[in-house]
Amino acid sequence: MERHIRYSADDRALILLDQRYLPSREDDFYCRNTEDIIYALQTMVVRGAPAIGVTAAYGCLLAAIEVAGEADWQSALRDKLEAIAEARPTAVNLRWGVERMKALWAERPDVTREGLTNMWLMEATLVHREDIEINTRMGAHGATVIDDGDTVMTHCNAGALATAGYGTALGVIRGAIDAGKKGITVIANETRPFLQGARLTAYELKEDNIPVTVACDNACGLLMRRGMVQKVVVGADRIAANGDAVNKIGTYSVALLAREHGVPFYVAAPLSTIDRNMPTGDDTPIEDRTPREVTHVGETQITPDGVPVYNFAFDATPNELIAGIVTEMGVLRPPYKESIAKAFKDAGIK
Amino acid sequence: MERHIRYSADDRALILLDQRYLPSREDDFYCRNTEDIIYALQTMVVRGAPAIGVTAAYGCLLAAIEVAGEADWQSALRDKLEAIAEARPTAVNLRWGVERMKALWAERPDVTREGLTNMWLMEATLVHREDIEINTRMGAHGATVIDDGDTVMTHCNAGALATAGYGTALGVIRGAIDAGKKGITVIANETRPFLQGARLTAYELKEDNIPVTVACDNACGLLMRRGMVQKVVVGADRIAANGDAVNKIGTYSVALLAREHGVPFYVAAPLSTIDRNMPTGDDTPIEDRTPREVTHVGETQITPDGVPVYNFAFDATPNELIAGIVTEMGVLRPPYKESIAKAFKDAGIK
Repeated sequence: MERHIRYSADDRALILLDQRYLPSREDDFYCRNTEDIIYALQTMVVRGAPAIGVTAAYGCLLAAIEVAGEADWQSALRDKLEAIAEARPTAVNLRWGVERMKALWAERPDVTREGLTNMWLMEATLVHREDIEINTRMGAHGATVIDDGDTVMTHCNAGALATAGYGTALGVIRGAIDAGKKGITVIANETRPFLQGARLTAYELKEDNIPVTVACDNACGLLMRRGMVQKVVVGADRIAANGDAVNKIGTYSVALLAREHGVPFYVAAPLSTIDRNMPTGDDTPIEDRTPREVTHVGETQITPDGVPVYNFAFDATPNELIAGIVTEMGVLRPPYKESIAKAFKDAGIK
Repeated sequence: MERHIRYSADDRALILLDQRYLPSREDDFYCRNTEDIIYALQTMVVRGAPAIGVTAAYGCLLAAIEVAGEADWQSALRDKLEAIAEARPTAVNLRWGVERMKALWAERPDVTREGLTNMWLMEATLVHREDIEINTRMGAHGATVIDDGDTVMTHCNAGALATAGYGTALGVIRGAIDAGKKGITVIANETRPFLQGARLTAYELKEDNIPVTVACDNACGLLMRRGMVQKVVVGADRIAANGDAVNKIGTYSVALLAREHGVPFYVAAPLSTIDRNMPTGDDTPIEDRTPREVTHVGETQITPDGVPVYNFAFDATPNELIAGIVTEMGVLRPPYKESIAKAFKDAGIK
């Protein structure tokens, strides 16, 4: 499953498994420069907050390669880094990835472009590896909240495909299975409009032989009312300082239904997804994407011509609906302001 | 808009606008016998509780024509009527339509087949006309709950296409506009999996120049949280004696979000949709439809091969989430057991 993000030093390219066409086609998408990276991010060739962070790191590397020969390469590079960081507004890991590379540059402001390229190749590779390791640790912590026989509902794809590997929400499920929990099954909400659940979560769980059933997002209420869901675990694109979790549109509805039916609702995300500068989820910018994702599925047009649509990509789930936030430092519990501060302190992050 | 259900005595056929292909194609579907009627009901050539009731009435007529020449035509006819009544399990109007025709037959048990055919042609035409009139009355009552400038969210299609004409939920919106309310706009939830909102509600409101915006079902929470929805009005397929409303899958999520955000949630349905023999919504049989509606949109497959799906077509919204039930006898308010009993009494229905 980890062939979906790989850097080829020979090709000087980041090779991404194109997630727009899964599961019907398994195409590779080659990013050779900043423009390709931004296109891949914006059209969701690659998506998922941690995977976006890793892509951003490699994007910085490609930008450093691209500015070779420019008189003022530092200035040209800074512009490209900013363009990458702004490619999508909601997932904080995008800027986090760029900032991490910039911080390394800031430590050696006199480095040559070639030197920087070498540093960043190592650093991007490290970001990539660390993400897999972080997800594995998250999975081990998250396993403690899953019981034998649980049916776990998840929304969108917070799996291997959304990360460098293993996954955040699906990492918790994999962690539970790796810890020997028996009879775990998954309900994947299809997650309109981009159908990450139907297409990607179903695809990667099937590949791993983890039992998964897909349902339309509309079915959540009935499934919970019938007692068919024991836990909900989702990922996040940004977690605010108060623990509000911004995630794929529709997550909030699932969380509200979960509370109504006494189903514990967990968010799984690395510390890099927590934005301590964002006071609440409602303060977070919500991306408004192309109408076509709503008006069409594949080539099939579903709305009449000329009818406008809303296509907000994310919503905020208030912290009071969240039973715990699974991170690489453990499962954070309310009150989140305190538990988040402690997790950063324990991790040695200022 | 009322050309979508019409009976042609010359053709001895019920001609339905095929709702499976709207808005991209406007095809007619001819029902010439019981088998055609059952096919049309089950594949949703025609759908929506009141429209199903009208179709059932014409279906009985076609069955009576079809049994011409049978030695024991009465027995053959009874079998066909039962097959029609059982075509779909959730919408009570289907059996209601058949029972109404049977009741008329029971009044004249010695009638000839030709005589019954004549009686049923008149009765089916009456059911058809009455439904339009009932919807118009419902719209006039419902107008009182809509205010100038309201954005009204609706789920599925409870419009002209779901009835003989005018609509239940969309009848309330039309009624408000007909009553001179200004600046009414509609948000149509797309309503996966069959996409009645994106395809049908958007289509008929656009035809009537009523401003409509389509959103994925997942967007409800964000739209309500941002204060973009002032009222919710939906239809129903069956209303239980306690006021629980069984409607298109996902309605329950919308109702729960509406309560959370203080948005009044109304159900619009004729008395024929109220099943006083059904104690609660949870007692109502929920149709489990073909996986293909979930796995494919048009010809595009969205789930991986071999992954199972859930496709429950309806859910029950508990009465405590419902601000009022708009009927042809007025807007019923809680406690519904009492207000429903009174409405039936006032309407002279035992």
